[in-house]
Amino acid sequence: MSQLGEFELIERFFHRSGKTAPGVALGIGDDCALLAPTAGQQLAVSSDMLVEGRHFLSTVAPERLGHKALAVNLSDLAACGARPLAFTLALALPRPDAAWLEGFARGLFALADAHGCALVGGDTTAGPLNLCITVFGEVPPGQALRRSGARVGDELWVSGTPGEARLALEVFRGTLSLPQAAFERVRARMETPTPRVALGLALRGIASACADVSDGLAGDLGHILTASGVGACIDAATATSLLAKPDQLALGYGEIPPEKRLEWVLAGGDDYELVFTAPAAAHGAVLRAAQAAGTPVTCIGTIEAAPGLRLRAADGHVRPCPYGGFDHFA
Amino acid sequence: MSQLGEFELIERFFHRSGKTAPGVALGIGDDCALLAPTAGQQLAVSSDMLVEGRHFLSTVAPERLGHKALAVNLSDLAACGARPLAFTLALALPRPDAAWLEGFARGLFALADAHGCALVGGDTTAGPLNLCITVFGEVPPGQALRRSGARVGDELWVSGTPGEARLALEVFRGTLSLPQAAFERVRARMETPTPRVALGLALRGIASACADVSDGLAGDLGHILTASGVGACIDAATATSLLAKPDQLALGYGEIPPEKRLEWVLAGGDDYELVFTAPAAAHGAVLRAAQAAGTPVTCIGTIEAAPGLRLRAADGHVRPCPYGGFDHFA
Repeated sequence: MSQLGEFELIERFFHRSGKTAPGVALGIGDDCALLAPTAGQQLAVSSDMLVEGRHFLSTVAPERLGHKALAVNLSDLAACGARPLAFTLALALPRPDAAWLEGFARGLFALADAHGCALVGGDTTAGPLNLCITVFGEVPPGQALRRSGARVGDELWVSGTPGEARLALEVFRGTLSLPQAAFERVRARMETPTPRVALGLALRGIASACADVSDGLAGDLGHILTASGVGACIDAATATSLLAKPDQLALGYGEIPPEKRLEWVLAGGDDYELVFTAPAAAHGAVLRAAQAAGTPVTCIGTIEAAPGLRLRAADGHVRPCPYGGFDHFA
Repeated sequence: MSQLGEFELIERFFHRSGKTAPGVALGIGDDCALLAPTAGQQLAVSSDMLVEGRHFLSTVAPERLGHKALAVNLSDLAACGARPLAFTLALALPRPDAAWLEGFARGLFALADAHGCALVGGDTTAGPLNLCITVFGEVPPGQALRRSGARVGDELWVSGTPGEARLALEVFRGTLSLPQAAFERVRARMETPTPRVALGLALRGIASACADVSDGLAGDLGHILTASGVGACIDAATATSLLAKPDQLALGYGEIPPEKRLEWVLAGGDDYELVFTAPAAAHGAVLRAAQAAGTPVTCIGTIEAAPGLRLRAADGHVRPCPYGGFDHFA
């Protein structure tokens, strides 16, 4: 087929004139989009940029990449308990490839539609493949989940199964071998993460602090600890068990050494789970919120006064956590 | 010096904790920023992505690039008559270079501060140099300048001196030679464009349609014509004269053939001027708005019913405009 032009590309793959969305007064097609947030609500804003080879492999299916580019941004809204409203997409492409764009847009809009989040504008240009999404959500004043609210004695929780995305990366790197069914599962976890939007909304008024896990549980928890001026101790066996649930063992995860499971749970990366704290008295409320959101959560430790992150072994021995966060420049 | 880490980079160059801004409830440092728009105002949103070699030369001074990255986004707010509020910055860098980042941040914040526009969040990652800014502004409902409001009989206006940025590009390409003083002027026009924010605000309620000129005057005017369902005729001599003002002639622009001047005014690119329409009865109001904004404007033509863009020569001969817009994939 002939070369796609910039405006034809936007019109063909990203302009859905039939779609309107509450809170969007003007969508794609002018110099700016116009958002009309619900009266009295604050607007939560986050930007994430995905670079080929850093945030996704060049072999990823475009549909999965479309999903992931939005998912990692929705994950930031989830972490602050905001309801998705709209997003912009800036896209640098080596060349406009219709088949690629069609798949990318399909994955992108499937997730956007599932969250009622409208594409309102953006930019397209030639260049090394780069996806930058800025997402907007709404949250009532004072109800946003922050990183700074963790208090000594709070329980420490994490959603889902951190570490599974890392298993896929290790398989791609050739350092781990998994049965086919297990590989398909962890590959989907890496390529199509589920943003925990429903959980974030359900945790408003319950969680004392929250962050999303993108660069590893230990590293992102570290941001909560620093912002809150506290420390934490994680139960190592409980953390390790996040990669040894019955369904995972049935898929062959049992072959992975326990110390590797612990490392990947704590410092896997690309998880897009929520790590959060809540008063111990809210234990039941957290479980009910998680159930209402259809998202499994696990209490993995406790907030303590002493700064830093520690691991407590089954025998009671406590040691500093040896895993840090992921640095994109390290 | 040692390698800069991602978080140190943000803390050192982009986190200005002493700075607060109206409308910003929470800035850098959490999963999301929180904006608290003025009650009843709409939020204007625009994203622009700048890629090395496409939107700027690798030789540009980082301070000028910091200015330009924000300027091209503020230009979109200007085009819809919105008042700047805040922005996010996503940055992919081949490596974290302190001297480069210091210059970039200096240019970025100088322009941001001049417009009361706060950096509220973003992302940094390793990757081919790419700058993506999403900017937020406020505008009262119904007062945003749109592309779709041009009416037959309206006058057609443009701000400043479209074409000057292109002269710099031609000098860099070696296809044009200019005296040093002229080169410095056009180079500054290309590298540090002035977003016409004050003019956009002043044109609320006066202009019937408006767009910013980033991909060439003819091309961006084309978006207004299409969105408004009209055509236009530009006076060729008036357009040509935008690169033959007395101060320009004093700098040596007189050496440029008139047909080249016309081409670069109409299809230069990188101008970040405003092209807008207004009823003929508002001619004086436009001039007063421009004077109040301290921005020169020129009436270059008329909106007509027949679709398309035409040029009228001094002898009255009318021909189709041979220049189109810039396509990033063409």
